[in-house]
Amino acid sequence: MHATLSGDVVRAGERARERFYDSSGYGHPVDGGALELAPVEAAHLLYRGDLEAVDGSDGTAMDFRAFLESAAVSEIAFLVYKDLRDRGFYLSPSREGWSDASAARAAVDDPAVDFVVYPRGSGPWDDEVAYRVGVVSEREEVPASDLGNLVLAVVDEESALTYLATEHRDVSGTSEAELPTNVPGELLSDRLLLWDPPATIYDRGFYGQPLDDRDGDVIQLSLLEAAFLAREGVLDVEGGAEAVVDRGREVEGERFDRRLRVYAELRERGLVPKTGYKFGADFRTYADVESVDDLGHSELLIRVLDGGHTFSPRDLALDVRLAHGVRKEMVFALVNDEDDDGSADDRIEWLSVTRLTP
Amino acid sequence: MHATLSGDVVRAGERARERFYDSSGYGHPVDGGALELAPVEAAHLLYRGDLEAVDGSDGTAMDFRAFLESAAVSEIAFLVYKDLRDRGFYLSPSREGWSDASAARAAVDDPAVDFVVYPRGSGPWDDEVAYRVGVVSEREEVPASDLGNLVLAVVDEESALTYLATEHRDVSGTSEAELPTNVPGELLSDRLLLWDPPATIYDRGFYGQPLDDRDGDVIQLSLLEAAFLAREGVLDVEGGAEAVVDRGREVEGERFDRRLRVYAELRERGLVPKTGYKFGADFRTYADVESVDDLGHSELLIRVLDGGHTFSPRDLALDVRLAHGVRKEMVFALVNDEDDDGSADDRIEWLSVTRLTP
Repeated sequence: MHATLSGDVVRAGERARERFYDSSGYGHPVDGGALELAPVEAAHLLYRGDLEAVDGSDGTAMDFRAFLESAAVSEIAFLVYKDLRDRGFYLSPSREGWSDASAARAAVDDPAVDFVVYPRGSGPWDDEVAYRVGVVSEREEVPASDLGNLVLAVVDEESALTYLATEHRDVSGTSEAELPTNVPGELLSDRLLLWDPPATIYDRGFYGQPLDDRDGDVIQLSLLEAAFLAREGVLDVEGGAEAVVDRGREVEGERFDRRLRVYAELRERGLVPKTGYKFGADFRTYADVESVDDLGHSELLIRVLDGGHTFSPRDLALDVRLAHGVRKEMVFALVNDEDDDGSADDRIEWLSVTRLTP
Repeated sequence: MHATLSGDVVRAGERARERFYDSSGYGHPVDGGALELAPVEAAHLLYRGDLEAVDGSDGTAMDFRAFLESAAVSEIAFLVYKDLRDRGFYLSPSREGWSDASAARAAVDDPAVDFVVYPRGSGPWDDEVAYRVGVVSEREEVPASDLGNLVLAVVDEESALTYLATEHRDVSGTSEAELPTNVPGELLSDRLLLWDPPATIYDRGFYGQPLDDRDGDVIQLSLLEAAFLAREGVLDVEGGAEAVVDRGREVEGERFDRRLRVYAELRERGLVPKTGYKFGADFRTYADVESVDDLGHSELLIRVLDGGHTFSPRDLALDVRLAHGVRKEMVFALVNDEDDDGSADDRIEWLSVTRLTP
């Protein structure tokens, strides 16, 4: 069977409609009984041998090889399309008119979505969408604003695929501790020492780390912990919270402010953030701390980023794989500029990225 | 017992020499029977209660707290010194005159070394050094040229320590395959296709990846594999190897050249490099490939860097932990400029970084 490339669609006749659309969900029917295929769909039919050739606008017949080498179809889009078909899914390009599903029609306006994938057993004539998929090569940069409600299909340089599910999520926990006020602390160059701290600060609040295992020992606070506690009135330090924040900015610039906003937001939401350094992240978090003697497993790894951040798929893969390996979920805290009224609360987006096997 | 701060040493009397040096390896004896301590050693003796106070140059007596808050001693050096003492080691600051060990004397001129650590049971009067240790805070940048024959003691923002052993190493393997010549290949935008490849290319050489699992299928080569094989005469591609290299530079700039040099060097050393994308690295390598049907576990993760690279301890921690989690060794390929004669061979340094528990 032949079909004809015309602009960015491949047109086939009525038999194609029965054979490809009705039975397998390729393309979409148009008036007069014909079928329009996206180039990637036509490439797959050529690859399967269901189409013999696609005639180009100059009349030459292209087989699979010639079609794939032409500019009509993206090789990485083809690899992803083929892989999802191999996994038993029907899918449509995210184009006007290709799908009856309302979620698919809504996705047409989102340039990050290349394919809408139906649940197994469903197709473009149903009203369900399992995944919105964006295709990227390993080397492309992906803006954070594209992510959320999107499965990134990353094609690596050796043509292997990885699927990363990206979702906006909420984070919350039940940790809280009654803390004293005006505990004296001494600022050193990159931390703060509590020489005679009330036990609750560490034991209940899980702030800081003892200098030693001895009872009643000195507690070391990180600059983030110290800045937060000074603002809350728990800590009394020379120069106040501002002195701690200034020191933080000296050692890590504006990143310190961004991390402090996320730290404070996590604490307010009932999570205990501790350093994620060993995992290459900003924080690991504990959702339900009642006492340090009874600490559970930390559930999330948090990386703090500017809202305008652009991801490299390679870095994403590294973070997500590491988090998976230590049984935690990778969450990016995207910090946007504060609102005019200074409220930061709703300006941090929590973006979860996990490995997906469709 | 008191001692006196004088410049960058703390002087103590003859009793101190017996009590601290002879029995525990603190400081070094000087003419006249006295003992000189580095400030970090004096801080530890204060912390233990073995010294009561150190008198400052203005005559004020400093206890542990006052001494640690003074500029005389670095808090992160103290944390590392204390931790190594807690683990049962004797150690000396890397300073002229502090140690009799020849390796310690040699380390004095290396500014990256802060402490020399003796094997358990040995001390500064012996001639053995177990570790050369450099102390850095999580936020410091570490030049690649500092690393190798060095244990990095990284102090994170919450004052926890991680030890990273860095060593220059050799890499080699036994993989080799007899390959045909002039195999035709077609360059696409980001890969190269072999439409009718001899089986040995994939089966024995482990070059590329089949488009499908079908026998005699199309093989996809990455641009790196294709550039290497074209240079070797195995591949015949329009425009020659240069056309492939040009395409590689288009998609990833000069990084492509750096990676190609490392790829070729690994192949010449008998390793098979495949993409390390899923691990956030440039390559994973197989040392002994005879056939793809009998692939072992890949042993190394390779990240390609410019020789002038500067590491952030956080990124190092991420790489090393991930490699450990997947039972591989993290190796950085540091690519220096080529020699005048164009030989690249000895200009790639292989730097292994592993987690160490002293």
